[in-house]
Amino acid sequence: MSQVLAELISIGDELLYGQILDTNSQWISAELDKIGVKVVRKTTVGDVASEILTAFAEAEKRAEAILITGGLGPTNDDLTKPCLAEYFDSPISLHPTALKELTHLFESRGFTLTERNREQAELPDKCTMISNRLGSAPGMWFERDKKVFVSMPGVPHEMKEMMNSQVIPRIKEFYNTPTIAHKMIMTAGIGESWLADKIKDWENNLPSHLKLAYLPSLMKVRLRLTGMGSDKTKLEQEMAAEIAKLLPMIDKFVYGFDGETLESAIGRELVDRQLTLATAESCTGGHIAQTITSIAGSSRYFNGGLVPYQNEMKEQLLNVNAATLKKHGAVSEETVIEMANNVRQVFNADIGLSSSGIAGPGGGTKEKPVGLIWIAYADGHQTITKKLQLGDQRLINVQRTTTAALHLLWQSLTQKNGEK
Amino acid sequence: MSQVLAELISIGDELLYGQILDTNSQWISAELDKIGVKVVRKTTVGDVASEILTAFAEAEKRAEAILITGGLGPTNDDLTKPCLAEYFDSPISLHPTALKELTHLFESRGFTLTERNREQAELPDKCTMISNRLGSAPGMWFERDKKVFVSMPGVPHEMKEMMNSQVIPRIKEFYNTPTIAHKMIMTAGIGESWLADKIKDWENNLPSHLKLAYLPSLMKVRLRLTGMGSDKTKLEQEMAAEIAKLLPMIDKFVYGFDGETLESAIGRELVDRQLTLATAESCTGGHIAQTITSIAGSSRYFNGGLVPYQNEMKEQLLNVNAATLKKHGAVSEETVIEMANNVRQVFNADIGLSSSGIAGPGGGTKEKPVGLIWIAYADGHQTITKKLQLGDQRLINVQRTTTAALHLLWQSLTQKNGEK
Repeated sequence: MSQVLAELISIGDELLYGQILDTNSQWISAELDKIGVKVVRKTTVGDVASEILTAFAEAEKRAEAILITGGLGPTNDDLTKPCLAEYFDSPISLHPTALKELTHLFESRGFTLTERNREQAELPDKCTMISNRLGSAPGMWFERDKKVFVSMPGVPHEMKEMMNSQVIPRIKEFYNTPTIAHKMIMTAGIGESWLADKIKDWENNLPSHLKLAYLPSLMKVRLRLTGMGSDKTKLEQEMAAEIAKLLPMIDKFVYGFDGETLESAIGRELVDRQLTLATAESCTGGHIAQTITSIAGSSRYFNGGLVPYQNEMKEQLLNVNAATLKKHGAVSEETVIEMANNVRQVFNADIGLSSSGIAGPGGGTKEKPVGLIWIAYADGHQTITKKLQLGDQRLINVQRTTTAALHLLWQSLTQKNGEK
Repeated sequence: MSQVLAELISIGDELLYGQILDTNSQWISAELDKIGVKVVRKTTVGDVASEILTAFAEAEKRAEAILITGGLGPTNDDLTKPCLAEYFDSPISLHPTALKELTHLFESRGFTLTERNREQAELPDKCTMISNRLGSAPGMWFERDKKVFVSMPGVPHEMKEMMNSQVIPRIKEFYNTPTIAHKMIMTAGIGESWLADKIKDWENNLPSHLKLAYLPSLMKVRLRLTGMGSDKTKLEQEMAAEIAKLLPMIDKFVYGFDGETLESAIGRELVDRQLTLATAESCTGGHIAQTITSIAGSSRYFNGGLVPYQNEMKEQLLNVNAATLKKHGAVSEETVIEMANNVRQVFNADIGLSSSGIAGPGGGTKEKPVGLIWIAYADGHQTITKKLQLGDQRLINVQRTTTAALHLLWQSLTQKNGEK
């Protein structure tokens, strides 16, 4: 059984000129992926008939299912319907069901149907109508030589309703689709190439129907294992067995699976252990606190945070020793240790997390260059520090430091901090 | 002079499977639009050499500039470099400058170069290297028959730096692109349709070679005036004259020009007036402080911030009256007034800014629904509060509240707060 291949075509000048972000095609891809249909290409073209027709012809050569969004509005620059009629050599005529649904939609909203809207109920004779329950442009389903062309509106909520209620069930039935499974392994604290080095033997020994991809972002790498087969249970067992072999090699970097965030994993650990947290941030300026509190329910474990941006505030509000600041400076291991320990007291929390550094782009010295950042974790039993040497991009440094601090916290909570 | 046509090619299985949203191609489209280069097609293909090569060949037939993102990582599924070498029939060899820059990058971060990383400094002989100042994969610039292929990393901040510093200037020079001038007018505190109503007469009277676009984001609208012509000085004078007519109509919403942020405008005003600021945040969890400190040099005017996430912390650290909290609750006008006034004392600052609300998605009551948020400004002479009723999206609420609080601060600083 071969896998069904799909192509997505998005139509609209506004997409080409960067005026609108195309979120539809990501959503459609993910939905097709779940039913084992593999998207092999996405194409965006403008409101130009010749380019739309070329895109149809190219897609039909490569794929079996062609899903089209956009270009179905009532104005003259909407060309998808006439292009499909031409491509399938089909006359267009008024579709009684489409007219009935359109009239009903307009009546329910208290509007009268205009002539321009009425034209939206005209469809190519060779297509099957797909009802649009949320808008005025019906979708179209064409079949030819075991290939399918589906046209849907570009308005996201209309398209999604149509996909869920009608297009996905039809595709599953039409192609009797195979099984694809994905498992995402979320890591932090290790770069892509170091990670690849650690697991290369495992990766090279994967059976050919399992494939690994590295998806890196700042200080984090997601590993995606994809499997294809016919028996879903067997495939998932096989993947679970491979992941069970992988995990011990990278245990201290794996904080979760399938899209979990570091901050939600931390929240889960803190709740499980009934521990509370407080933050003292200098160079990150509140970003660690903001990331922790981005999780709904974080008030159960986050007592609060302090951003003592001036040295005197570090002394007055956080009781950092004046002598420490004088001798070692605000950006020092000694200072972040005091900050992490003292912020626990200030907020009556079990754990303190702190940051201090030179976020840049200016403000560095020879001894303390831009990008030098210290972070610390303290829980009353132990204090762990980490030194980072980052670049000169202020916002990137803030984000990287936040991830490093959260990773340090997560490692300490889960006692995976044997190696710094 | 005909318009330069461009195509964008995004490479990566993760884009086809819907695991990553492609924001790069929208950003690139918008940047090319600014210099008068017209994107005619966007294509996304997976990590498969034959499909990448086909996409190159198709794009070269239709466009003059082909901009490629992704597929430049150090792992085996990254195929862009070998594909470009094959397409341009070029051997690959170690590029001394690339190696030098890569070594420097690694040293500056305290890492040793691995063999796998070292391979990233190998480039096709026929390309010109594009420096990657923020990451390990250099970009590549190929020229053939007046056509250009540019390859950049898929990591957004690396790609953007490369585009701004090197690719855009090169494209402008290579194609001698026409004169296009842009002026961006940054507004906050007014919705798109209200803004459009206020300025519709002015907009309708613009000469045909000047075009206005509304670029809305959360609580902000950027107005972009674009002019096309042959004489740059004349064009800019004409645009300045139109903007001089526009400004009095929307004075209290305009906080800056050309990409200035609200936080940088605030920084400028605070420095000019020699005033200092402190923040007390509940529902925004540190986001206001983090936004203020995202500006380099903010330590000159930002004394610090407090995130008293628990009621007892509001009492103990911020001296909010227990009776106020008991009678009116943490989410109330009375509480944010005390928070804004008291945080000035705690951090010895001229101005205090505070927030308290129900960020959601849960936690609302009938009297205080999810999305109810209070903010306050206090400077010792006056206290100004504002009530927001937002939706149930936690992160969006945090961002909107931050913008509203910064706008309140900016209006108060510049005494443009006559109307709330």
